[in-house]
Amino acid sequence: MEFSNLKETLRTVIAIPVTPFAAGGELDLLSHHRLISALISGGITVVTPNGNTGEFYSLSPDECRRMVAATVEVADGRAIVVAGVGFDIETAVGMARFARQAGAAAIMVHQIIHPYRTHQGWVAYHQAIAEAVPELGLVPYVRDNLVTPAMMKNLLEACPNIVGVKYAVPDPLLFASMVREVGAERLAWVCGIAESWAPFFWVGGARGFTSGLVNVQPKLSLDMLECLRAGDYLGAMHIWSRLKPFEDLRSQHNHGNNVSVIKEAMAQLGLGRRAVRPPISELPEWERAEVANILSTWEMRVASSG
Amino acid sequence: MEFSNLKETLRTVIAIPVTPFAAGGELDLLSHHRLISALISGGITVVTPNGNTGEFYSLSPDECRRMVAATVEVADGRAIVVAGVGFDIETAVGMARFARQAGAAAIMVHQIIHPYRTHQGWVAYHQAIAEAVPELGLVPYVRDNLVTPAMMKNLLEACPNIVGVKYAVPDPLLFASMVREVGAERLAWVCGIAESWAPFFWVGGARGFTSGLVNVQPKLSLDMLECLRAGDYLGAMHIWSRLKPFEDLRSQHNHGNNVSVIKEAMAQLGLGRRAVRPPISELPEWERAEVANILSTWEMRVASSG
Repeated sequence: MEFSNLKETLRTVIAIPVTPFAAGGELDLLSHHRLISALISGGITVVTPNGNTGEFYSLSPDECRRMVAATVEVADGRAIVVAGVGFDIETAVGMARFARQAGAAAIMVHQIIHPYRTHQGWVAYHQAIAEAVPELGLVPYVRDNLVTPAMMKNLLEACPNIVGVKYAVPDPLLFASMVREVGAERLAWVCGIAESWAPFFWVGGARGFTSGLVNVQPKLSLDMLECLRAGDYLGAMHIWSRLKPFEDLRSQHNHGNNVSVIKEAMAQLGLGRRAVRPPISELPEWERAEVANILSTWEMRVASSG
Repeated sequence: MEFSNLKETLRTVIAIPVTPFAAGGELDLLSHHRLISALISGGITVVTPNGNTGEFYSLSPDECRRMVAATVEVADGRAIVVAGVGFDIETAVGMARFARQAGAAAIMVHQIIHPYRTHQGWVAYHQAIAEAVPELGLVPYVRDNLVTPAMMKNLLEACPNIVGVKYAVPDPLLFASMVREVGAERLAWVCGIAESWAPFFWVGGARGFTSGLVNVQPKLSLDMLECLRAGDYLGAMHIWSRLKPFEDLRSQHNHGNNVSVIKEAMAQLGLGRRAVRPPISELPEWERAEVANILSTWEMRVASSG
C-alpha cells in the first residue's frame, strides 16, 4: 500500500486484539481466528497483533511470529495488519522482516525497553529497523514524555517510511505541541491510550485511536470515532461516559487490570477464556462482579460467568 | 554453592561489566576477557554479565548466552557469576537454564518489562523461573516502587532459592521499610543503584551494592565498601564526594549517559573502546572533556582520548 494511503487508513480505530490462551496456557489460535473475524465484521479495518493488550511481553519469539502470521491470514485483505515489533535491533529487524514476509502492511515499533536512551540513539534505533523494511510503514509507539518534537523531526528525516505515531503519554498538551511542531497532515497521529483520552487527543490533532475495548465489542468505539470525525464532541463524550467505568477498571492496580478486564468481559459474554499469563493475573471475584455490572449497563447479554 | 554461603558472598560490590563492542559493532570477547580479569585482580568477587550497564537490552539472545559463557570461563572460580535473565517466562527460563549449564552460581531476574503487573502475577512470574533452576540462587532486580513488603514476603515463600534482592528504587525509606518487614538477615540486600546511594541504603540495611564504576577502576568502590563495613560513614562519604561527579555525569539525560560515560572513561584510560549501541550513543566532545576532568582529579593516567 502506498504510504499516503496507509496514513489515511491508519486514521481510524486501531484494534489491539488480546492473545487468547487455552486452558493449559498455550496459544489458542482457533479463538484468535474467531476474534479477528468478529473485529473485522464489526467494522474494524486495522489490527495490531503483538501489542501490549496482546500480552506481547509474555509471548515467546515463536509465538509472536505465529500471532502475526495468523492475523494476516484471517484478515485476508479485509483489514490491514500493523505488527508489533521490539527488543534489541537484531531481534526487532528479524520481527520486522517476518511481518513483511507474512503480509503485514506496517509495523508498530514498541517503546524501547532499554532503560537508557539518548536523542541520537533513539533515532538510530528506529532508523536501523526502518531501513531493514523500507517497503513497510512504520509506527513508533511513544510512551516516553522525554521524546521531543525535535527528536520526532529528526526521526522523520531519518525514516521516510514512518506513516504514523502511536502517542501514549497521558498529556494532551505535550501531544498537541508535538502535532503542531511536526505537522498535523504529515502523519497519522494516533491516540495510543484509547477511548478515555481519544476526545482530548482529537482536540490536539489525533485522527485515530487504539482500542482494547473493541475486543469486547467494536460498536461503542466506532460510534465515538464517527462523532469525533463529525466534530460532535458532545456525542463523543456521551459515549465516553458509558465506557469510562470499564476503562477505569482496566486502569486499576497501576493498569495491572488492563488485559484481565477485557478477557473477563469476553469470558462473561462467551467470547473467550479469561486466562492470562504472569506477570498479570485473572480478576478476583469482586472485580468480576464489577465487570458484570458494567456489561449490564451496556445491555449486552451476559453468558455464564463460571 | 550453598545458599547461606551465596548470601554471604553477595554482600559485597557486585560488578556490572560493560559489554565491549568492536569497531564494527560486534561483541569483542578479547576485550571482555581483559575486563573481567582486571575486575577480579582488582578485588571483585561477584560479576553480573547481562546487566543494564552491560547493555542487556541491546544484545541478541545469542550474544546474551555468549556473555554468560565467556564470563564464567574467565572468572574460572575466582569470582562467582550472577547472570542477568529476563523477558517472557519461556525465554527467561531458557536463559536461566543456560546460565546453570554454563556454571553461573545465580541469576539476576531483570525488572519485568511487561507494562502491566499484578501482585499475584509478579510472584508467579518469578516462581516459574525459580522452579526451573532450583539449584541456582535467584536475585530479583526491583526497580518498581509498587513492589511492597507483602509482595516480597509472598515471593520468598514461593521461591526458596531467592538469595538476595537488587533494590533499585531511589528511595531509602521504602528500602529500609522493606528490609525491616522482610528481615535483614534473611537475604543479601543489595543497593542496586550503585555508589551514589550505597551509604544511604547501608543505613537502611544494605550490605552490598552494584557498581558500573568498577569497570574504570574497582578501588574507590571497594574502599567505600570497607568503610561501610567498618561503620565509617565519614570515610564512605569522603569517597562518595570523589566519585559523585562521575556518577552525576552518568545520570545526565535521564541516565542516557549511564554506560557511555563508563566506556568513554575506559577509552581515555586505554582500557577499551567507547562504542555503544542504540538507543544510546557516544558522548559529545564537551562531555568527553568532563570525563577527562574527573579522571584527572582521581590522578589516573589518561591515555590518548582520540
